[in-house]
Amino acid sequence: MAEPLNFAGWTCPVPLRNHPNIVMGHGGGGKMSAELVEHLFMPAFRNAALEILGDASVVAIGRGERALRLALTTDSFVVRPLFFPGGNIGDLAVNGTVNDLAMSGARPLFLTAGFILEEGMPLDQLGVIAESMAAAARAAGVTLVAGDTKVVDKGHGDGVYINTSGVGLVPDGLQIGPHCARPGDVVIVSGELGLHGIAIMSVREGLEFGAPIESDCAPLNGLVAGMLAVTQDVHVLRDPTRGGLASTLNEIARSSQVGIVYNENKLPVPPAVAAACDMLGLDPVYVANEGKLVAIVPRAVAESILAAMRSHPLGAQATIIGQVTDQHPGVVVARTPIGGTRVVDLQVGEQLPRIC
Amino acid sequence: MAEPLNFAGWTCPVPLRNHPNIVMGHGGGGKMSAELVEHLFMPAFRNAALEILGDASVVAIGRGERALRLALTTDSFVVRPLFFPGGNIGDLAVNGTVNDLAMSGARPLFLTAGFILEEGMPLDQLGVIAESMAAAARAAGVTLVAGDTKVVDKGHGDGVYINTSGVGLVPDGLQIGPHCARPGDVVIVSGELGLHGIAIMSVREGLEFGAPIESDCAPLNGLVAGMLAVTQDVHVLRDPTRGGLASTLNEIARSSQVGIVYNENKLPVPPAVAAACDMLGLDPVYVANEGKLVAIVPRAVAESILAAMRSHPLGAQATIIGQVTDQHPGVVVARTPIGGTRVVDLQVGEQLPRIC
Repeated sequence: MAEPLNFAGWTCPVPLRNHPNIVMGHGGGGKMSAELVEHLFMPAFRNAALEILGDASVVAIGRGERALRLALTTDSFVVRPLFFPGGNIGDLAVNGTVNDLAMSGARPLFLTAGFILEEGMPLDQLGVIAESMAAAARAAGVTLVAGDTKVVDKGHGDGVYINTSGVGLVPDGLQIGPHCARPGDVVIVSGELGLHGIAIMSVREGLEFGAPIESDCAPLNGLVAGMLAVTQDVHVLRDPTRGGLASTLNEIARSSQVGIVYNENKLPVPPAVAAACDMLGLDPVYVANEGKLVAIVPRAVAESILAAMRSHPLGAQATIIGQVTDQHPGVVVARTPIGGTRVVDLQVGEQLPRIC
Repeated sequence: MAEPLNFAGWTCPVPLRNHPNIVMGHGGGGKMSAELVEHLFMPAFRNAALEILGDASVVAIGRGERALRLALTTDSFVVRPLFFPGGNIGDLAVNGTVNDLAMSGARPLFLTAGFILEEGMPLDQLGVIAESMAAAARAAGVTLVAGDTKVVDKGHGDGVYINTSGVGLVPDGLQIGPHCARPGDVVIVSGELGLHGIAIMSVREGLEFGAPIESDCAPLNGLVAGMLAVTQDVHVLRDPTRGGLASTLNEIARSSQVGIVYNENKLPVPPAVAAACDMLGLDPVYVANEGKLVAIVPRAVAESILAAMRSHPLGAQATIIGQVTDQHPGVVVARTPIGGTRVVDLQVGEQLPRIC
């Protein structure tokens, strides 16, 4: 039934940093990930919904008066180890997809879950993961409505990989997306940065940093609902996961064709994360979060949104870190504590593979 | 935010055939798969939509006059090899999810794709797979609206695993599901059985059977639309993939609490598949298909539905193979060519792992 295709002489249209094969850096959420999407997947799949490159796509379904706007998203989770301080792959998979939906302003409603199990995976561990997913779904108010299970031979997986896809309903009138930042807007983060990435790194590398660092993995749809109850005039919401705050701000700057400036000394980096990053030579703005959001809102509504965020447990430490400018479109700049400025680019590869 | 959980003493509630770990048989679509779902996943996730265990779940979204019925489904593809006669993992992943949506009577609209790439996967192969997915999506009239890419270390994947999840719109008034078969209904299959499974097996095991056997991988939504244009009075649609016709009929018999009887000599098994099955000691009713459907419909509309099916290229060889009875509820029985009958049960494990 498919139209005839001739792949005989097919070659990748643009070499990806000269690698003929996938390398770990293609999964890091940085430049190589972006190039893989831009040069390999987009030429095949290009359409208006994909083009926006948001956490979720918003599409219309139904006709005329009955048309609804759905948010759709998908995410595969390959985190290692499966269990880490503050969570496991199960609640991470639920919260990650709930958050991707929430970042479009949608009310998350339904999830699907696809499991790729490796031969030898202990069933009791799988049971704990399933129960964690169910608990996370209840906490977020979403229903898991479809599932699939595949088994691969030992040595072709890593215990369990989980894909969660999600469907949410976008309220009428809302226009939120990475392309909607406007000069003059302010940039808010909802709380402390870097906890998920450092939690994974500490357990994986056997590092100890005095106080244990736990992942911030949490569902953000309640926080977003509180913000939208104040005003629908929110321009951008993103959760800075893979690639951290820096990658998220870069994606927004490019998508909206605006500049973004933030103050490094306004960043809420907890001392334990700062110490770990010092020791490991990392910049916390590239470290993954799983329960934080970046909001870009008009200055006129910033204080009322901040107040709403701070009244929610997951936004108690919300703070303004910077602003959007018509200078240097597409570029993110940090003001350093000693008064200088520096360009904050996407990383090429990644700090730490398989963080989510 | 999640409710407090104490997993300290967690054990799997029911031992799964006494395996403490996942084994390949859990992925075969037979008894072990069913037990894994029933004993491990369902206790965690149980809800009305999941309970039906259809290829897709049908849920309501929106309120009052604007409410729509969505079909939602998810499927991960781990087929080996990635390229096989008649297709590759890319078009298989698109058609598989399109078909799961179509089997609920839905018009498939949107897909998401999640890629788990193994370090070292050649980019040119990935490019061919992406192009095949795009071509299959165009042929089926669906739009891929969201994607995700993860990379895992060499030795923790197998080139590429693909999850596709899908959203379709279920027309008003339609009630199709594995629980809807009624005594007196007739059982139709849309065409020749066993092609996908034997195609995979032949390339994987290096077998040659004279004429090459190609996978029947194809999108069935056009065929279903043609059937529903004749009448909405269709009770069950299923595509007999993993576990083949026998598993599909068993699931329907259990879900509807009816008996199903089919005539072995009515089964459209092509000679090449029959010969391969003879040689390999397989029963073609357990072999996977990827472009066939089983329809269970009232006798009164069977002939008009058959005529509609036969007018579509993918249903040209549609034929009635049996009927639904109020005898032996939950049990599938085959009438053998020599006049006997035998019970056709679910397989325990699987004939061939990683077929989809």
